[in-house]
Amino acid sequence: MLRVGYPAALVPEVLRELPEGIELIPVSDKMDHDAEIDVWITDPYPTRAQRTWPHLRGVRLVLSMMAGTEWIPGTVGPHVTICSAHGAHNVTTAEWTLAAILTLLKQFPLFLDIQRSANWRRRNEASIAYAAISGDKRTHHPPVMLEDLTGKTVLIVGHGAIGKEIERMLAPFYVDVLRVARRARKSPEAHPVSALESLLPQADVVVLILPFTQETRWLIDRPQLALLRQGALLVNAARGPIVNTDALVEALQAGRIRAALDVTDPEPLPEDHPLWRCPNLLITPHIGASSPHFARNALRVAGAELRRYMNGEPLHNVVQAAI
Amino acid sequence: MLRVGYPAALVPEVLRELPEGIELIPVSDKMDHDAEIDVWITDPYPTRAQRTWPHLRGVRLVLSMMAGTEWIPGTVGPHVTICSAHGAHNVTTAEWTLAAILTLLKQFPLFLDIQRSANWRRRNEASIAYAAISGDKRTHHPPVMLEDLTGKTVLIVGHGAIGKEIERMLAPFYVDVLRVARRARKSPEAHPVSALESLLPQADVVVLILPFTQETRWLIDRPQLALLRQGALLVNAARGPIVNTDALVEALQAGRIRAALDVTDPEPLPEDHPLWRCPNLLITPHIGASSPHFARNALRVAGAELRRYMNGEPLHNVVQAAI
Repeated sequence: MLRVGYPAALVPEVLRELPEGIELIPVSDKMDHDAEIDVWITDPYPTRAQRTWPHLRGVRLVLSMMAGTEWIPGTVGPHVTICSAHGAHNVTTAEWTLAAILTLLKQFPLFLDIQRSANWRRRNEASIAYAAISGDKRTHHPPVMLEDLTGKTVLIVGHGAIGKEIERMLAPFYVDVLRVARRARKSPEAHPVSALESLLPQADVVVLILPFTQETRWLIDRPQLALLRQGALLVNAARGPIVNTDALVEALQAGRIRAALDVTDPEPLPEDHPLWRCPNLLITPHIGASSPHFARNALRVAGAELRRYMNGEPLHNVVQAAI
Repeated sequence: MLRVGYPAALVPEVLRELPEGIELIPVSDKMDHDAEIDVWITDPYPTRAQRTWPHLRGVRLVLSMMAGTEWIPGTVGPHVTICSAHGAHNVTTAEWTLAAILTLLKQFPLFLDIQRSANWRRRNEASIAYAAISGDKRTHHPPVMLEDLTGKTVLIVGHGAIGKEIERMLAPFYVDVLRVARRARKSPEAHPVSALESLLPQADVVVLILPFTQETRWLIDRPQLALLRQGALLVNAARGPIVNTDALVEALQAGRIRAALDVTDPEPLPEDHPLWRCPNLLITPHIGASSPHFARNALRVAGAELRRYMNGEPLHNVVQAAI
């Protein structure tokens, strides 16, 4: 019988998502013995999963609970097949992205500061902030405090499953969507990464939702940030090192752009890091995929992959084939 | 020639939205003379418009720049026709509503506090906050920090132009929408106000987007709040007095519900008001309709109404017909 190791801390009810006819073995970094297993469903916390790995014997297949798997090959080596939780957290991550875009365009961080100070009349600060970041020098009446998402141009860098979900949620706002994908495509048109620099100046909002690889490290660096419009909003829902953090800090401190980051480099961000105190910025501490349904959704995807594995069918979400 | 008074402070370019063949007369509360006009386009700030009114002579038609017109009849009396800016700010107000819902479900107010304290590890507070407000007592792994909008039930109270726009923006989240309208309707089904109390217990999110009248004053009072689910989110994008503020403060302080308010009662909210310091609450100071396109959008609607008036056609947005 196939032995499947799973994080001991999971709520038991989510194990119902896994197929019948397997032996379920709880594993954790607190084990005082080694476990012989064939398939390893990894803990969603990489550090905890990495501490669990030395206790495991016989693993041939790793099923990640996360979409991002960049830490796994270095931990388990090349003789193990690795599958991502492709699709499991699409909706949740896309929702975080929409929430982040709207929160920044509506200046909610400033309004929360005003709320904390209990001073309704401070709302005028919102029009000063709008004028500063937008570069709009006209004297509006009434003063402009918020921006519309409707009608803006959104560049989605990475047009995989989550990128497509983000585009679906943007549809009611009649945005112009530009797409960059690893492979250029027609209908809908997706541009190759080589076109990135020609697209950046057209975007009001840039969403990063692509895998982190050696090719995508610092994809957004000083030259790319310099191409952004005054006040453009950079949203990183992917991985921190896709952006050069020092360059981002400079652009934010200069009042050139806005940003929303669910991921940073380094991570966790140390207390003395200047990024924490940059203006026009929302940081959430890598929680964009969090949901009451996270584990269920992840195990549903892992369970489907496990059924294919047991039936000898091709796996769908392989990110590393065992050599 | 028809004499049209408009707020002197408007950016001149937006006057292009008004028809040819009229005499444009700037008016304001700072005028040292009276102005003889036929049509008055009111300042978007009611207090400023009310101070302008004593300077005006001959007004037969008032065109509001706002959707809400509740202050106008008491100021101009019954012998003047009043039209709202129906439709002008639908998209902007609906966007505020979506932004407010997502911001609360994603706990961005807490994450902004964490960001200000520059302490990544405080993210665990989000799972404690989720457990407290949701009433979900299970031990999740990983801990739950955010909720999905997808799959929730949203009750829209007021199914006019803005309510319909909110429903359109909710569509990608596959929410179950319940509707309450002044007049019950089929397809899509809208329930009468008398059904409100049977619908409130079904909703995860309740959006108030109905006109303020004597009938809708305190529509949401203690009994209605008591019917809401633990952790339900009440969004007021309409007018403050539709909710009994004291009852709302009690429900928030008890940790029973969440709320997002663009409007309050009283307004402006005084510095010592307990609402400012309630938990699970976002307050924005009546800015939900703010947009760089606010004046253009308002004058586009006023201009269309003015064309109909000049052509002797029926007006579309009459909220008071002159007696």
